[in-house]
Amino acid sequence: MSLIVELCVFPMDKGASVGAYVARAVGVIRESGLPHKLTPMGTCIEGEWAEVMGVVRRCFEVLAADSDRVFLTINADWRRGRVNGLSSKTATVERVLAGGQS
Amino acid sequence: MSLIVELCVFPMDKGASVGAYVARAVGVIRESGLPHKLTPMGTCIEGEWAEVMGVVRRCFEVLAADSDRVFLTINADWRRGRVNGLSSKTATVERVLAGGQS
Amino acid sequence: MSLIVELCVFPMDKGASVGAYVARAVGVIRESGLPHKLTPMGTCIEGEWAEVMGVVRRCFEVLAADSDRVFLTINADWRRGRVNGLSSKTATVERVLAGGQS
Amino acid sequence: MSLIVELCVFPMDKGASVGAYVARAVGVIRESGLPHKLTPMGTCIEGEWAEVMGVVRRCFEVLAADSDRVFLTINADWRRGRVNGLSSKTATVERVLAGGQS
Repeated sequence: MSLIVELCVFPMDKGASVGAYVARAVGVIRESGLPHKLTPMGTCIEGEWAEVMGVVRRCFEVLAADSDRVFLTINADWRRGRVNGLSSKTATVERVLAGGQS
Repeated sequence: MSLIVELCVFPMDKGASVGAYVARAVGVIRESGLPHKLTPMGTCIEGEWAEVMGVVRRCFEVLAADSDRVFLTINADWRRGRVNGLSSKTATVERVLAGGQS
Repeated sequence: MSLIVELCVFPMDKGASVGAYVARAVGVIRESGLPHKLTPMGTCIEGEWAEVMGVVRRCFEVLAADSDRVFLTINADWRRGRVNGLSSKTATVERVLAGGQS
Repeated sequence: MSLIVELCVFPMDKGASVGAYVARAVGVIRESGLPHKLTPMGTCIEGEWAEVMGVVRRCFEVLAADSDRVFLTINADWRRGRVNGLSSKTATVERVLAGGQS
């Protein structure tokens, strides 16, 4: 569970409102059972490469099914041996800001 | 307040643990008073272009001050007339997933 | 000239074909006189923070003028003392691949 | 060949100079035989989802093999029916800038 991927994905040919399409992708992520966190700009997913990227592919496919153009960004952060990165990364930052050690 | 920027920024020459440096940038964002949300992969900031990008610049400068290389990614989503985007965007997705309208 | 920014920017409410809008942004970059390189996924711009980000802002504004939603990504790489990064970065990679030093 | 992915990948624990590591990833991409284009900020790769993402995975693995932290960004643009996107996308922009149609 050492990989965290933030995925942002949407169709480019459905106009300015894409919430219904984004929800499809988030639904796919939820069904995967992988630890994840919805943010204002995407969804962070944690797991091993194959399982996370498998979910990313299904998110893409569920949008490409009825779209002619899909745009997708990923930021991926892999750290050897990390566990519970979705909570530990923000906890580290909060601890430092509160005067503690990183 | 129609622009949302997710900022991810870190030094490349400080080794694998960058939490203390990321915390500096998050501190700058908090001091700005702009609406923001810390995520596992960055911080989402909402405001007008000049104020958000002014904060991004200060985050960059506070890391470049004692680093030789800094990497930074931005995903920016501007929508005319949007208010409270940090909460409304995720709320829309949750509403659709619960069976409602986008 | 130690900052390189790759900018990808497009309107979300103009359909699948956005080449005419992307060209507007590239036109703004060309008029700036800053060193730049058009790629299949964006444009890399080199300069100081204020001048590069000033161009990024004008690219955003020229699309937001007649759009209701604009999406933008930036990858930024700052390295102290670097010159001619647009050519030196790819040259380093090619040199290593040819068996030389990085 | 309707997917274009721009991949940027580097280790976070090897100091400011990462050219030798980036070259490993570019070497993997070249060996794949997929159409690609090296840019100052990454490499654009064109193909079908499975083949492009397979290459991305091998690039990640070749860096993770001797690193404790690897950072990776992807911008992906899929368009139904597009061929030769690596050259056609920039050609469209140049044509519009020269006064032609998009």
